Amino acid sequence: TTQFNPVDHPHRRFNPLTGQWILVSPHRAKRPWQGQQEAPESNKRPVHDAECFLCAGNTRVTGDINPDYKQTYVFTNDFAALMPDTPDANQSQDPLIRCQSARGTSRVICFSPDHSKTLPELSLCDLEKIIDTWQQQIDELSQIYPWVQVFENKGSAMGCSNPHPHGQIWANSFLPNEVEREDRLQKTYFEQYQSPMLVDYVRREMADGSRTVVETEHWLAVVPYWASWPFETLLLPKAHIQTMSQLSAGQKSDLAVALKKLTSRYDNLFHCSFPYSMGWHSAPFNQQNNQHWQLHAHFYPPLLRSATVRKFMVGYEMLAEAQRDLTAEQAAERLRAVSDVHYNESGN
Amino acid sequence: TTQFNPVDHPHRRFNPLTGQWILVSPHRAKRPWQGQQEAPESNKRPVHDAECFLCAGNTRVTGDINPDYKQTYVFTNDFAALMPDTPDANQSQDPLIRCQSARGTSRVICFSPDHSKTLPELSLCDLEKIIDTWQQQIDELSQIYPWVQVFENKGSAMGCSNPHPHGQIWANSFLPNEVEREDRLQKTYFEQYQSPMLVDYVRREMADGSRTVVETEHWLAVVPYWASWPFETLLLPKAHIQTMSQLSAGQKSDLAVALKKLTSRYDNLFHCSFPYSMGWHSAPFNQQNNQHWQLHAHFYPPLLRSATVRKFMVGYEMLAEAQRDLTAEQAAERLRAVSDVHYNESGN
Ligand SMILES: O=P(O)(O)O[C@H]1O[C@H](CO)[C@@H](O)[C@H](O)[C@H]1O
Ligand SMILES: O=P(O)(O)O[C@H]1O[C@H](CO)[C@@H](O)[C@H](O)[C@H]1O
Repeated sequence: TTQFNPVDHPHRRFNPLTGQWILVSPHRAKRPWQGQQEAPESNKRPVHDAECFLCAGNTRVTGDINPDYKQTYVFTNDFAALMPDTPDANQSQDPLIRCQSARGTSRVICFSPDHSKTLPELSLCDLEKIIDTWQQQIDELSQIYPWVQVFENKGSAMGCSNPHPHGQIWANSFLPNEVEREDRLQKTYFEQYQSPMLVDYVRREMADGSRTVVETEHWLAVVPYWASWPFETLLLPKAHIQTMSQLSAGQKSDLAVALKKLTSRYDNLFHCSFPYSMGWHSAPFNQQNNQHWQLHAHFYPPLLRSATVRKFMVGYEMLAEAQRDLTAEQAAERLRAVSDVHYNESGN
Repeated sequence: TTQFNPVDHPHRRFNPLTGQWILVSPHRAKRPWQGQQEAPESNKRPVHDAECFLCAGNTRVTGDINPDYKQTYVFTNDFAALMPDTPDANQSQDPLIRCQSARGTSRVICFSPDHSKTLPELSLCDLEKIIDTWQQQIDELSQIYPWVQVFENKGSAMGCSNPHPHGQIWANSFLPNEVEREDRLQKTYFEQYQSPMLVDYVRREMADGSRTVVETEHWLAVVPYWASWPFETLLLPKAHIQTMSQLSAGQKSDLAVALKKLTSRYDNLFHCSFPYSMGWHSAPFNQQNNQHWQLHAHFYPPLLRSATVRKFMVGYEMLAEAQRDLTAEQAAERLRAVSDVHYNESGN
């Protein structure tokens, strides 16, 4: 009888942060693809685009005029999904028709006035300013809201409707599903092992190395053992940190290094502006003892084989379980095999 | 003070099948869209395409030749995500690096030899043959496997790589995440209310009507109260039915009617071949008492505003919680406002 071998044999891996399994079919990467082709992002954009709603000095859809900003610029989304003044709904105990009112706000954060750049092409100094802005926004909004979701949708494949480098900040009067679940599972782990789940995990990954993509002084980016998206990564501080405001100056400037290296490797993999959704999870602002929490960022990039062929999470994935066509270790190896200097900067 | 009103105010709705909340932002449908445009499926295809791997008599990638089939045709996927003979892996108790081996099979089901047609364009008799094939496949595979996932990815926006009308059947040696969760939550409901959750839900929706899209003698299709995708629907038998093999002849032929009407309304909404992923959930084949189960199909269509503008479940949705821009009632109203006779057949 043959021995089980995760490089050849379909298997399921368990995601301890979500309690969900992922089906890994490592032999499947060979199938031909005749489906949809993505349009790779053109890298040639002007530094300022008169038609762009996010460029400095331009007029937005609402008639508001963007200031002549020089670093980051934050404003309330002109079509915010949440509003601060929604009245309370009656809390219904109906098990089938159950609703609650939701308050919050959505803000846009322009990463740079330079319309032509993306995260990996910004300087370390510019990246530090973005990290500072994230932290200030979270500090401000967490005075009012128990949850602040910082994220970036990059590339049209990830629903981004404007190539100007920008992200979003949504504050919520509630703990959203994903955060509530990570909170619950990290807490259960902590109760059982008296140690934070993701602090233990960082140690394991540092000792192993097979899933490491970027390691800096204070940060580690790995393709997690349980990744669903082909080149998904998890970015973690090596120390136990619950929220962004606990980061030291050294940890913040080193985060700029880690972000630049990770996103450069992504772009270098298929020599294109690599689409992804990324965002930060931290201890919620709910006045609880959150020692079970470890700050981290998730990167969910859709590309699978090339700049134009993505993974679709559709039929089986939506109805049954996430499925992937290469192992986490194979994905990490491919990301390690390319340079951590962006192809647009490697001539320097 | 204003009163809470679900048509104007952001709120969360609870999905009792998944235990997850959905953020509804009904005021948000007005925002402009400058992002990715989908390529609508061209409706003009030949009845037989010499290049198609699924047409009768053609040679597939592997060299196998399709028979000259006249109704449905089922074969094992040439690049199956699962294999029947995967050896067992050691069951690890490691809470962070945890895997199990997975066995199963993936089959392709051609719905018709006619390359030019889609589900709503097939005759009721052809649709009954498809339902028979689904049932026979489930009957056969459930002898060996506790789970059989029947599904269809339709349209390139849903990762479908071949426009020939076809679906898939994946059998699993395990209960996938989504099925395990629906099983657990329906069971808890049954224990509390001594009645199956979705049987109660069908009654509520029949009495209400505001979310109904199609009602036939034995079937009801609604935009569920907790829908995440803009025009998501849930298709349910009115009677308590646990698995497809329990359907009477009358319930099966009426299912053909319901499927034809529902998918025709979809196509008529934006006058295009409406992409979706759909699939069946039923009691698993695990020798348990599954009286808490109610058979149902989910339809997850991505389009939001037109044949070319879809909803993206990206940043906030992946990191926090699903979000939608119109209420379930508004979506149902729009699907009711179009004909249940397909635009290609309405001249007849
Ligand atoms: O099997 P297909 O049609 O080639 O592939 C499609 O459906 C599968 C099952 O949902 C997905 O895993 C693939 O990502 C998708 O492209
Ligand atoms: O706010 P944007 O960039 O217009 O919209 C994008 O991000 C949002 C938050 O993830 C999603 O709800 C939208 O579907 C997506 O298109």
